[in-house]
Amino acid sequence: MSGYNVAIVGASGAVGTKMREMLEESSLPIKGIKFLASKRSAGNKVTFKGETYIIEELTAEAFLGMDMALFSAGGSISQRFAQEAVDRGCVVIDNTSAFRMTQGVPLVVPEVNPQALTAHQGIIANPNCSTIQMMVALEPIRQAYGLERIIVSTYQAVSGAGVLAINELKDQAREMLQGEEEVEASILPCAGDKKHYPLAFNALAQIDVFGAEGYTEEEWKMINETKKIMSDDTLKVSATCVRVPVLSGHSESVYIDIKEDNVSVQDLKDLLEKAPGVVLEDNPEEQLYPQPLTAVGEKEVFVGRIRRDVDKSNGFHLWVVSDNLLKGAAWNSVQIAESLHEMNLVRVPQVGEQS
Amino acid sequence: MSGYNVAIVGASGAVGTKMREMLEESSLPIKGIKFLASKRSAGNKVTFKGETYIIEELTAEAFLGMDMALFSAGGSISQRFAQEAVDRGCVVIDNTSAFRMTQGVPLVVPEVNPQALTAHQGIIANPNCSTIQMMVALEPIRQAYGLERIIVSTYQAVSGAGVLAINELKDQAREMLQGEEEVEASILPCAGDKKHYPLAFNALAQIDVFGAEGYTEEEWKMINETKKIMSDDTLKVSATCVRVPVLSGHSESVYIDIKEDNVSVQDLKDLLEKAPGVVLEDNPEEQLYPQPLTAVGEKEVFVGRIRRDVDKSNGFHLWVVSDNLLKGAAWNSVQIAESLHEMNLVRVPQVGEQS
Repeated sequence: MSGYNVAIVGASGAVGTKMREMLEESSLPIKGIKFLASKRSAGNKVTFKGETYIIEELTAEAFLGMDMALFSAGGSISQRFAQEAVDRGCVVIDNTSAFRMTQGVPLVVPEVNPQALTAHQGIIANPNCSTIQMMVALEPIRQAYGLERIIVSTYQAVSGAGVLAINELKDQAREMLQGEEEVEASILPCAGDKKHYPLAFNALAQIDVFGAEGYTEEEWKMINETKKIMSDDTLKVSATCVRVPVLSGHSESVYIDIKEDNVSVQDLKDLLEKAPGVVLEDNPEEQLYPQPLTAVGEKEVFVGRIRRDVDKSNGFHLWVVSDNLLKGAAWNSVQIAESLHEMNLVRVPQVGEQS
Repeated sequence: MSGYNVAIVGASGAVGTKMREMLEESSLPIKGIKFLASKRSAGNKVTFKGETYIIEELTAEAFLGMDMALFSAGGSISQRFAQEAVDRGCVVIDNTSAFRMTQGVPLVVPEVNPQALTAHQGIIANPNCSTIQMMVALEPIRQAYGLERIIVSTYQAVSGAGVLAINELKDQAREMLQGEEEVEASILPCAGDKKHYPLAFNALAQIDVFGAEGYTEEEWKMINETKKIMSDDTLKVSATCVRVPVLSGHSESVYIDIKEDNVSVQDLKDLLEKAPGVVLEDNPEEQLYPQPLTAVGEKEVFVGRIRRDVDKSNGFHLWVVSDNLLKGAAWNSVQIAESLHEMNLVRVPQVGEQS
């Protein structure tokens, strides 16, 4: 039977679970599949296309005979095992931030820069969830009219922080609805950071730890990954990343300056209506605009509230929403696998081989 | 006994309740107080400084003998009764949008433009909640360095939409936490509009009805009121207003271009640290930044996450949070009353009298 042997690393996590679902729906020819996770989750059962599988413990040897591995078990796991997998002939699609900015590692949104895949050396990085959905919405505009500047403020869901964070938000919300004034927080805004704050009925202007110049690492990811994906170091990008009490579905208030003049809101709507991976939801008269609650479970990026800036004729505002676990993570990873297959790139180049 | 006779119109509402509390804490000399509301709420009891009062039905005659009235019972009530009150010698501080853009009606944030009060003809307008907190944060910067442009994305709490909307959000959240997938919505995003969507675990990019050019009326309020309060028609302002599942406390991601060059983040921090009505909460190392949950119940405007734009040396980002029922509504109204008292302006000018 032809097809690929595929491994999912981090199979029991929020994204790993969605990777499994997306692979079930994918047309990618799969010969065999393997679910890998930490020792703690090994032994648990999952189903795939009606068959039951036992989650195996992640080891370097587990990648022997695998053609592709989708990693989503945290940056340190990718740092430790991605190259081990590649060394065993397995192409890695990594959903963590471990290699995204590494030179030579393609950072790919298939609707935007599939051609970057041709240069892969074994590892392909899946961009940050917030970045991906913005790229899908903005690339058609960049191609048609040029893009000068992006200022984005995000409204990010908790599911990007994992299953424990989802449960923490739900527990906090339950307690606050019962009248508790002080609720516990031990994970959010960032599991590895010193202080933790409740997210229920709150908004936290911190995602990931703080980095240079007062920006968080999440904000730097949006800034740097955007430039890499769009292959444009001159593109101006700034970001404010905020966690809101939404379970799944990231929303973004995106302001852009485009290079061309005399572009109308209708031009942008016409463009986005036929753009790959985009669903235009923009009709103020019918109160139609994207919402995280209606975007959840969908693979597309939803765009609406397109308006010209009041004071700048080449400035526009957009409201961009997508399921952060799907297009923002699992679905984009599976799309990369599909693209690798279609482009005949599911192989690890030999040392010294020119790609 | 010296002092004023004060009426609260809309005494049983979310803002009216806070107006009562703020007046209790205020140093304004109050001789007598009267609580007015619709026929439906008339007869209910409220306490003020330990005394019990019965809410009276709102009529034009109720303003006879009153010196000041704080209105917060919706725009149509203000349209119908504000001038009636003025005609009976009562100065009106109106928290609705009814007269905000009316020429000759001062639109006042006491930290920003108290001098506008001197021209009042009986009615003074309290600005929109989202506008007020942004003005308090930006006016010191405008005065010191000049302000060229504002781009704001809001994260607004439900309490601005009233008591029924608060209850709707709580009910939806409870049901969703119990596993309900479809929850009812009959108020939000906008009571008077055709369609209603759940806010629990969602983000709704609509506050108020849609107006010109695809902007909502809430967005137009922020744009137009900002220019009026800052007395600058050339100031560039654009807004995206979003409701998030927060009970009280509006947050804003504010981007500004200032006129002066060579201003540092530290300059802005130093300025805001001593600005009236502002509390600087800005220390990334200590994960200190404003949060709606900690701003609730406080009268100040909290500012943090101050960063220079990555690509524009005179561009800065700020995160501005305040209790929308207090500084955004009740407290600002009471501050206007205090200013009128201090400036000896608690009187309705006679017809033809120059102010």
